[in-house]
Amino acid sequence: MSNVIPKPSVPAPDILRCAYMEIVVTDLAKSRAFYVDLLGLHVSYEDDKQIYLRSFEEFIHHNLVLTLGPIAAVAAFSYRVRSNADVDAAEAYYKELGCRTERRTEGFVRGIGDSVRVEDPLGFPYEFFFETEHVERLHMRYDLYSAGELVRLDHFNQVTPDVPRGRKYLEDLGFRVTEDIQDDQGVTYAAWMHRKGTVHDTALTGGDGPRMHHVAFSTHEKHNIIQICDKMGALRMSDRIERGPGRHGVSNAFYLYILDPDDHRIEIYTQDYYTGDPDNPVITWDVHDNQRRDWWGNPVVPSWYTEASLVLDLDGKPQDVIQRTHSSEMEVTVGADGFSYTRAPGDALTGDPGEEVGFKMGHQL
Amino acid sequence: MSNVIPKPSVPAPDILRCAYMEIVVTDLAKSRAFYVDLLGLHVSYEDDKQIYLRSFEEFIHHNLVLTLGPIAAVAAFSYRVRSNADVDAAEAYYKELGCRTERRTEGFVRGIGDSVRVEDPLGFPYEFFFETEHVERLHMRYDLYSAGELVRLDHFNQVTPDVPRGRKYLEDLGFRVTEDIQDDQGVTYAAWMHRKGTVHDTALTGGDGPRMHHVAFSTHEKHNIIQICDKMGALRMSDRIERGPGRHGVSNAFYLYILDPDDHRIEIYTQDYYTGDPDNPVITWDVHDNQRRDWWGNPVVPSWYTEASLVLDLDGKPQDVIQRTHSSEMEVTVGADGFSYTRAPGDALTGDPGEEVGFKMGHQL
Amino acid sequence: MSNVIPKPSVPAPDILRCAYMEIVVTDLAKSRAFYVDLLGLHVSYEDDKQIYLRSFEEFIHHNLVLTLGPIAAVAAFSYRVRSNADVDAAEAYYKELGCRTERRTEGFVRGIGDSVRVEDPLGFPYEFFFETEHVERLHMRYDLYSAGELVRLDHFNQVTPDVPRGRKYLEDLGFRVTEDIQDDQGVTYAAWMHRKGTVHDTALTGGDGPRMHHVAFSTHEKHNIIQICDKMGALRMSDRIERGPGRHGVSNAFYLYILDPDDHRIEIYTQDYYTGDPDNPVITWDVHDNQRRDWWGNPVVPSWYTEASLVLDLDGKPQDVIQRTHSSEMEVTVGADGFSYTRAPGDALTGDPGEEVGFKMGHQL
Amino acid sequence: MSNVIPKPSVPAPDILRCAYMEIVVTDLAKSRAFYVDLLGLHVSYEDDKQIYLRSFEEFIHHNLVLTLGPIAAVAAFSYRVRSNADVDAAEAYYKELGCRTERRTEGFVRGIGDSVRVEDPLGFPYEFFFETEHVERLHMRYDLYSAGELVRLDHFNQVTPDVPRGRKYLEDLGFRVTEDIQDDQGVTYAAWMHRKGTVHDTALTGGDGPRMHHVAFSTHEKHNIIQICDKMGALRMSDRIERGPGRHGVSNAFYLYILDPDDHRIEIYTQDYYTGDPDNPVITWDVHDNQRRDWWGNPVVPSWYTEASLVLDLDGKPQDVIQRTHSSEMEVTVGADGFSYTRAPGDALTGDPGEEVGFKMGHQL
Ligand SMILES: [Ca+2]
Ligand SMILES: [Fe+2]
Ligand SMILES: [Fe+2]
Ligand SMILES: [Fe+2]
Ligand SMILES: [Fe+2]
Repeated sequence: MSNVIPKPSVPAPDILRCAYMEIVVTDLAKSRAFYVDLLGLHVSYEDDKQIYLRSFEEFIHHNLVLTLGPIAAVAAFSYRVRSNADVDAAEAYYKELGCRTERRTEGFVRGIGDSVRVEDPLGFPYEFFFETEHVERLHMRYDLYSAGELVRLDHFNQVTPDVPRGRKYLEDLGFRVTEDIQDDQGVTYAAWMHRKGTVHDTALTGGDGPRMHHVAFSTHEKHNIIQICDKMGALRMSDRIERGPGRHGVSNAFYLYILDPDDHRIEIYTQDYYTGDPDNPVITWDVHDNQRRDWWGNPVVPSWYTEASLVLDLDGKPQDVIQRTHSSEMEVTVGADGFSYTRAPGDALTGDPGEEVGFKMGHQL
Repeated sequence: MSNVIPKPSVPAPDILRCAYMEIVVTDLAKSRAFYVDLLGLHVSYEDDKQIYLRSFEEFIHHNLVLTLGPIAAVAAFSYRVRSNADVDAAEAYYKELGCRTERRTEGFVRGIGDSVRVEDPLGFPYEFFFETEHVERLHMRYDLYSAGELVRLDHFNQVTPDVPRGRKYLEDLGFRVTEDIQDDQGVTYAAWMHRKGTVHDTALTGGDGPRMHHVAFSTHEKHNIIQICDKMGALRMSDRIERGPGRHGVSNAFYLYILDPDDHRIEIYTQDYYTGDPDNPVITWDVHDNQRRDWWGNPVVPSWYTEASLVLDLDGKPQDVIQRTHSSEMEVTVGADGFSYTRAPGDALTGDPGEEVGFKMGHQL
Repeated sequence: MSNVIPKPSVPAPDILRCAYMEIVVTDLAKSRAFYVDLLGLHVSYEDDKQIYLRSFEEFIHHNLVLTLGPIAAVAAFSYRVRSNADVDAAEAYYKELGCRTERRTEGFVRGIGDSVRVEDPLGFPYEFFFETEHVERLHMRYDLYSAGELVRLDHFNQVTPDVPRGRKYLEDLGFRVTEDIQDDQGVTYAAWMHRKGTVHDTALTGGDGPRMHHVAFSTHEKHNIIQICDKMGALRMSDRIERGPGRHGVSNAFYLYILDPDDHRIEIYTQDYYTGDPDNPVITWDVHDNQRRDWWGNPVVPSWYTEASLVLDLDGKPQDVIQRTHSSEMEVTVGADGFSYTRAPGDALTGDPGEEVGFKMGHQL
Repeated sequence: MSNVIPKPSVPAPDILRCAYMEIVVTDLAKSRAFYVDLLGLHVSYEDDKQIYLRSFEEFIHHNLVLTLGPIAAVAAFSYRVRSNADVDAAEAYYKELGCRTERRTEGFVRGIGDSVRVEDPLGFPYEFFFETEHVERLHMRYDLYSAGELVRLDHFNQVTPDVPRGRKYLEDLGFRVTEDIQDDQGVTYAAWMHRKGTVHDTALTGGDGPRMHHVAFSTHEKHNIIQICDKMGALRMSDRIERGPGRHGVSNAFYLYILDPDDHRIEIYTQDYYTGDPDNPVITWDVHDNQRRDWWGNPVVPSWYTEASLVLDLDGKPQDVIQRTHSSEMEVTVGADGFSYTRAPGDALTGDPGEEVGFKMGHQL
């Protein structure tokens, strides 16, 4: 890999967690119907250009900013760091990487103070900040608790052509890998990495990028996610349920993927596991294991592999999308050329419940 | 319809509920692993030929009999009636229908007394009994309560070529329809009908028959069903999860379909609604409504439409399967010739979340 | 028992289920805040004198009528019968009993047609009707589904001095007992009886009566009940949580008791069991079994035993309350004179987890 | 406060999390029945002197060690640190504090390597280690998942007479306070503090100490905790349910307290909130707020305030218990001399649901 991203000589900022995403939407009213009326996120501020939303247990100003604009895209993946000094550290770090950076002591959006935004080596608009306006933490406001309540921002997911290249860069930045998907040819298809002690704060999905694959919010329990499905059915929006609900193999979380009015993908997620120890065991999944993406073997729909949101540079222009040249997870696992197994040969725990390496023909395209 | 089944002049028996199914399995050890070790049904009796199983809240002897035999099939759909006099009534009723009947005062299986089995007009082996051995109702034995506990037998589902013909016969027998699926050409694709005040004790699914589509057990909550999926994943049996979990349109229940070692289909089911009033509103679903079978619009896999279990006559021989000549639900809804919508034109409750009559292309075959 | 209530010679009406309660409240706005804003019941009709409410899965006009009046009381315990002929039957039945009856073909309240109200032999205002306006069954309106959604009316509970006397009368009326509480002196403290195939449509609690002990609504799952507690905490109404949540011994249901602004007691209830078979096993609990009222041995607060709502005669005057002369369940189980055990002598399933017949001293008054 | 614990000049160890507790039990078979058969903890190792147990999602060797001994007590509160260098740091830190320390490179128990145990300034036996044997993380072994599965060790709770003194010491050691209980006289009754980003890794409860108040395990969902209650009811062990289930005010978690055969108190706990940001808002509860300990206002039983387990010194002798001289939370809130309110004057969110400052008389002793 000739284009390896070097590790800067200056220290990486101390990142606490993924904090918020700023997304550009093309119809604020439709987006409000989706995020506020359907999903029940709580409005911290809104005007005719932007809506600031937070989850039930959040005390920083917001976890999501909807900004009206001409092209649906992502304006920022924003991480909270431990202090203002870490904002300085982030700025120096990316400058040494030769990335374009922009520092604004008053913040790029409301409710956030001194921040730096960068065009990172993978082409993503990353932001780092510490200062934020504290808002009412609603965690005991059960009078506001909806049946499908979103209680925390959990993670981002980014599409990038070369996963090992991106992983090395993020590990240098202080992220720790918890799980990944590989094949026996040495191809990495995806990797999950964290700062806050859960399975991830962000993940890299192999594909044409830079693009934003999804942003994920947590619920308390599984039934909360089921309620979101049920409500989308009641609103005759079931065609906006893209995938799930299901149990992930990777992360062990219960999940759902839905699409907002601009096709930004939102994941609803609950019950992954603690990863905060430095020797937390890394789990590598075989790309041909049919339970890696869905523990119940339910198929991943093709759109989930192929569709994603554009990301913006610091001028607000969409970044060019670069094609993945490594193997495609979809191609190696789905359809006539693909191959997946439920049980590796000789692996069956129970008395031969089907074929030796059974998988779900009917479910595959 | 020239072959209409006449209503007998004698009164129909007073049926309480679906009570148990006797199924023939080809490997008792494998079936035991499935029903006892995986699903946690409770053994009321077992020997090297049969296993008698009951659900957590049952007090009659069993809800399922596994009988070792050469061909996987269903030996009896058994209903409990209000009294022994109703067994007499059932016998007289089917005799007048010209059906073959067999009465055994000592019962056909253990734990059941005076019974009649019949080859019904649709070709199904129906049984009616009142006498049964009471066993310990385990409903407060939480020391035995597994994470995916099955608490009640809920219903049967039968495949028959001519649904209106079967429906008329079952309505004469005292069943009341709660929901059905039709098209605007007057074709009925399926009908649900009950005795016990839930959505159904049995349902008719249009297709080649007589065959047994599935038998369904209830759980208390939705997470119990998710646990069954998770456990099947852990046992590397995810290829035996055929469809779901999901929310039914019809019945409003949360569901899962799994396959036993002989491909007998088992549904796990929870939270339908009370239907015991005589004017309970019947719900008719349009066959093209993409939320009728799954409220979240997730696709029905083809095997669910095409595969089903043979049923036996009173000699233990498989009944001939007669082809459905009416339209196939699968053909009119799935694939190139099919058509389904999420929203009827002009029906959207929310601001145009997708196409006018959106449905999930990626999910269809 | 010299005052036994004779069984009429005419047939009893065919009762389907408890259908609604009409309660008199003294401040309609406060009651609306409780039943609509807090509990999320759905308004079928309201004006400045009455509010008609229904649960999520109901299709008859209402399950609860709040009528503004000077004295908090219960105006009617209303049962739905199978047909108008059964309203006639009810009228004849109570006339033969010598009870005062009033028939109104236009109904006593909105949404209900031909009805009879009676002052029953125990002093309760009972109503019987079949005709009702069908309203939208909201069972799939998950866009309206709150986190603590009440989905069905489950049962009434009535306080009466002489439980066996009342039980005999209700059994004659067609109710079937599922569970009761007795002591070894032959005293019955309470009895549960049903029509619709659950543990009860009504129950008799021994005490000064006639009074209304509570009316109960069902939720789908246990977390829905917990949410109601959490919401009452958030609204700083925890002093209106009277008892629970807990698991009943009797009925095996998960429960909560809360008090409305007039101290009418509401139970929230989920997951009892099927009782529709004629030989459904009756469970008799020992009054000294400390798990009979709460399976976890948590104490019953004294107010739960002593407080209840007045009931009205057909003129709208409160019925006189007659003292119970049999033993009081509270007195025989709570406090210095009471006695309860967790394990009967020699009954421990586990190795002596405490005293031989352990109970919770700290929890008792 | 003349006996303030000074902050050492050497750096504090970098503590990751509470990792395990070693408790002395007097009957290993009874304890095994409790922790393995009832609670379903997984055995990592056992012999006739000790049982090593872990929770479902754990990968270090154990979360609980049961050691057979003559007196029920706690032998160690063990924290995992980031590295072996942090074990050195811990040793140096406590040596500077003048505490007795003992270093064992081979560990004090199986599965743990280089460790230091100390008699800390509050009299508790604290342990610090990094090295541990990795065992199978069972987090996807849903074939082993019980209905009341314990998935993580969550926290310790320690009784100490002078909470501010202990809090200052633990803050110096690197713990961060998330919540506390105070009165307007400046008395602190309890404090919660964390390392791992949840509400706590340990808490200080004001009372006679040093004693161990409880050790807490997490479940995934609330129903898992309810199942533990239900199972204890089925096993006729309800008198070993000491308090709950309920919703905490402090921490917002759903909780249950049960007692093991030696009266060691175990909490089952789920769904507190993320606290990992350095400016995480601290919540101070008024000791008179009747929802602080139970959000639903259910009473705290006296035993919960008064009973706790002895702790051992490094010779295995019970530490002397020193009386609390500050106000007792029980005395200021329960009984004739106590005072609690549900609503502060003028605080009611809803229309006067009861008394101005309502609380539950009937529930108080
Ligand atoms: Ca709401
Ligand atoms: Fe994700
Ligand atoms: Fe079914
Ligand atoms: Fe009740
Ligand atoms: Fe705790």
